[in-house]
Amino acid sequence: MTGNGRSPVTVIGLGLMGQALAAAFLKGGHPTTVWNRSADKATDLVSSGAVLADTPDEAVSAADLIVVCVSDDDALHGVLDPVAEKLRGRVVANLTSGSSDQARANAAWSAEWGFDYLDGAIMTVPAGVGAPESVFFYAGPQKAYDRHAEALALLGGGTTYLGEDHALAPLYDVALLGMMWGTLNSFLQGAALLATADVKASEFLPWAIKWVDAVKMFATDYAGQIDAGDGAYPARDATMDVHAGALKHLLHESESQGVNAELPRFVQGLMQRTIAAGFGQNSYASMIELFRAPEK
Amino acid sequence: MTGNGRSPVTVIGLGLMGQALAAAFLKGGHPTTVWNRSADKATDLVSSGAVLADTPDEAVSAADLIVVCVSDDDALHGVLDPVAEKLRGRVVANLTSGSSDQARANAAWSAEWGFDYLDGAIMTVPAGVGAPESVFFYAGPQKAYDRHAEALALLGGGTTYLGEDHALAPLYDVALLGMMWGTLNSFLQGAALLATADVKASEFLPWAIKWVDAVKMFATDYAGQIDAGDGAYPARDATMDVHAGALKHLLHESESQGVNAELPRFVQGLMQRTIAAGFGQNSYASMIELFRAPEK
Repeated sequence: MTGNGRSPVTVIGLGLMGQALAAAFLKGGHPTTVWNRSADKATDLVSSGAVLADTPDEAVSAADLIVVCVSDDDALHGVLDPVAEKLRGRVVANLTSGSSDQARANAAWSAEWGFDYLDGAIMTVPAGVGAPESVFFYAGPQKAYDRHAEALALLGGGTTYLGEDHALAPLYDVALLGMMWGTLNSFLQGAALLATADVKASEFLPWAIKWVDAVKMFATDYAGQIDAGDGAYPARDATMDVHAGALKHLLHESESQGVNAELPRFVQGLMQRTIAAGFGQNSYASMIELFRAPEK
Repeated sequence: MTGNGRSPVTVIGLGLMGQALAAAFLKGGHPTTVWNRSADKATDLVSSGAVLADTPDEAVSAADLIVVCVSDDDALHGVLDPVAEKLRGRVVANLTSGSSDQARANAAWSAEWGFDYLDGAIMTVPAGVGAPESVFFYAGPQKAYDRHAEALALLGGGTTYLGEDHALAPLYDVALLGMMWGTLNSFLQGAALLATADVKASEFLPWAIKWVDAVKMFATDYAGQIDAGDGAYPARDATMDVHAGALKHLLHESESQGVNAELPRFVQGLMQRTIAAGFGQNSYASMIELFRAPEK
């Protein structure tokens, strides 16, 4: 105990990420208890002042806030189910990657055992833990989040409470990762195409970055059109027919310059179905209708 | 003629875009001659001071800079081929949408008739012509671009000369449009997924925007890895195996929440092939290998 009045924290799971989490709590002056299936992962943390618990029981008994970052939901239950009655009244903040179904099931499990459950998502790598720009999402009971907001904020300056529905953390997580892959894939497709004219990826990069800022403005308009909920999707910038015409050029260039054309062909399929559904004169926001429904 | 010493400009093709181009030249004080297949499109411009040419011959003879914005490459040749000998010594800046093959073929055509050919691409809508942030790309002989750089800059503050290879304009154009569709599709996919938890698109939007800024940093690292050309693709952030693991969550969420799962499934296919090619421990930049080669 450091005697500085900061609340004790327990971290369960000491992979690279768990170690980074515990180190951030220690750096912030919180008495930190750690537990891992293989105790040797705790060596560095113990020399930095962490207490290594001998058992999960001892670990969960050491703090009101128990942060869990293990390999998956099964591993979480493998550790916590045997000590579930010791969790009563405490807060479990689960940063293990998992699904929205698991988040909601864990919320029900917490109600059964009388503890507060926060489902979290980590939007950074271990080296980013503690950085001002790093984002951590939490969802679940707001009072539980508020009780430990100061400690949780040590993990990243962008730590954010999303709402009571536990599913929000994993859903935001994958939705944003999807944007990462979508943006990166189209960047790589463009870089491959421009390489056929001896343009380096780093020459394309500043234009890609500038253009993505323009795309943010389109997305801002489209978000409003989607939320309006009236299905109007006014084409203030370009109609779906115009988009489809321009896409033909990308597809043609990809094919004729001998690079991979799967991505533009895939996007063409999405656009064609949206147009066939009657949105040829509407904005790109009308594509949400296709994304909302399972594919037939 | 205004007598202000500004060089005369001719604009051929008066669709919405061509009208906006001519209006920007007029606003900038350039004596502007226009021609269109249907002369009635010129009415507003003529009242603003444009001269309506009776024939393409008269139009191309009126200026050293001839800006063309017609429906397609066939339309361009339909207008200019009969008057090609009048083009000698002049500069044709072609803003008609076209392919890199057409750009290079038009460059050969210009050499045959002794005029300078610039192939251009317009990265904005008609309402954006003349705005400080609007981007116009040009590629072709630098001396021809330099001769009319001041006039061309009136069309958009982001007007940029890309290089001598005429293909650069159409290739940058479609590469950037591809990034727009890639980013927007993944935004819509995420918005559809979050809507299942009653999150509005406009609530997701600020996170999407913030996250895209993080993605720019990844892309910056990857551009360097690609240009290194050594095939090393060091996984400083996450390995392909880690990406593929995270993608499974997005796919599972999309399927289990009942939204369209085609996009994550498509991306999964790309990732799986990259991993099968031996890049499981490399960064996402290794996906360029797949994008570079035609699909089998």
